[in-house]
Amino acid sequence: MAIRVVGFDGDDTLWHSETRFSVTQAEFRELLLRHVPEADVDARLSEMEMKNLSIYGYGVKSFTLSMIETAIQLTQGLIPASDLEVILGWGKRMLMEPTELLDRVELTLQQIAGRYDMLLITKGDLFDQESKLARSGLGDLFIGVEIVSEKNIESYQGIFRRRGISPGEFVMVGNSLRSDVVPVVTLGGQAVHIPYEVTWHHEHVPDEQLPSQGWRRIATMSELPALLEALSV
Amino acid sequence: MAIRVVGFDGDDTLWHSETRFSVTQAEFRELLLRHVPEADVDARLSEMEMKNLSIYGYGVKSFTLSMIETAIQLTQGLIPASDLEVILGWGKRMLMEPTELLDRVELTLQQIAGRYDMLLITKGDLFDQESKLARSGLGDLFIGVEIVSEKNIESYQGIFRRRGISPGEFVMVGNSLRSDVVPVVTLGGQAVHIPYEVTWHHEHVPDEQLPSQGWRRIATMSELPALLEALSV
Repeated sequence: MAIRVVGFDGDDTLWHSETRFSVTQAEFRELLLRHVPEADVDARLSEMEMKNLSIYGYGVKSFTLSMIETAIQLTQGLIPASDLEVILGWGKRMLMEPTELLDRVELTLQQIAGRYDMLLITKGDLFDQESKLARSGLGDLFIGVEIVSEKNIESYQGIFRRRGISPGEFVMVGNSLRSDVVPVVTLGGQAVHIPYEVTWHHEHVPDEQLPSQGWRRIATMSELPALLEALSV
Repeated sequence: MAIRVVGFDGDDTLWHSETRFSVTQAEFRELLLRHVPEADVDARLSEMEMKNLSIYGYGVKSFTLSMIETAIQLTQGLIPASDLEVILGWGKRMLMEPTELLDRVELTLQQIAGRYDMLLITKGDLFDQESKLARSGLGDLFIGVEIVSEKNIESYQGIFRRRGISPGEFVMVGNSLRSDVVPVVTLGGQAVHIPYEVTWHHEHVPDEQLPSQGWRRIATMSELPALLEALSV
C-alpha cells in the first residue's frame, strides 16, 4: 500500500531534549554531592521519577518536582531552600530554552511535506510541547499535532480513528523503540527508527521484544526521503 | 439552526476543582504565616502564579512549583526543606484525589448523550485531565476529548475545523465566562454559563466586555436539558 501519512516524534527526533535533561541532571548530581558525597544521586533520582510517573506524567515540570523531592530526601531535609530555588531555576531554564532542531531536520521535512501528510505525534506536557513546536518554526509543515500522555497501542488507535488513517498507509518516524516503533508495528503500520545519542532508560526495549519486521533503522534524518519512497512501493 | 454538538468544560463544571486549590491554598497560608506572620501570602502566591503562567501553563504541577517558589522567596530562603516536602505532598494529594462530580452531572449527561454529540473541552495539564476523566466514569458518554493549553478563539476554531463543526450547531457549557462563553459566542456559537461557587480571579470578565447575546446563565446542570431544547428551535 502507498504511504499517505508520516508521523513524527518531536523530542530527540526533530529537536534535542534528552541532552538537556542530562545536562541538568549533571548539575543536580554536583549540587547534591556537596551535601551527601556518598550518595548515588542518579539512581535515586531515577527511582523517584519512576515512582512519580503515574502521578505526574512526563515532562520538565515533573522532572523538576522529582529533583526537589530527591534533594530533600537524600539530605534528610537538610538541604537549604536556596539550593532548591536553584533547582527551580533549572526547570524554568529548560522550559524557556530555544528549540534546537537536530541536523538536517528542517530541510528534510520541507522536502517530504509536499508528498505526504505529516503529523506531529509527541508525548509529554501539553503546554511545553506546544511551546516547543511554536518556537521550532516547523508548525506549518504539519497537517496536525497530537500530544498524548503516553504513546501506546490505544493512543495510536485513537489517532488513526479520529483522522481516518488506515495503518497500512502510515509510517511513524522516531527515536524510541518503545513509543514510536513497537505500538505502530503491532497495529500493522510501519516505523522508522532514528536512534538519538542518548536514550532514557525508560524507553529501552530488549531486542527479543522487538518486532521482526515492519520497521527499519536509519542513522540520520537525511536518509528518510529515499526510505519512504522505497516503503511506498 | 438545530444544536448538534454540546461542548462541556471539565473543571468546576463537571467536577470540583477550584475548591481543592482553595483548600490547599488555605493550608499553604497557614504554613507560611508561621514563618512570616506579616506576609500577604495569597497576594504573593497569586503574583507568582501569574508570573509563571507563560512558563508553566495551568494545572496542579504548576501550582505546586509556584507554591514552593513563593515559600522560598517569602521566607528569604529560611523555610526548612521539610516544610517544602509537605507542599510537595499537597500537590500529589490533589493529583490523586478521586474525581468528585458536581450535583446532578451524571444524570444530566446521561439524559443528553442520546440527543447530542458531546465533547469534553478542558484546559490545563494533559496528564492530570486525562486522569481525572478516567476516574470520573464519564468517559464513554463523550464522542471526543479536547485538552487545550488555553481556551481562546484559535483553539475553538481548531476544534471546529478538525471535527467539522459549524459554530451555529454548537453550544458550549461551562463555568468560565472567559474560557467557555466569550470565545465561543465571538465565533458565532452559543454558550451556557453555570457559575461555580468559587471563581479564580484570572477567569473573571468585566460585565462591559461580555457579549450582549448568544449565551444564557443557569444555576445548576439540571436546567440544561430543557434549555438545550429551547435553543435548538
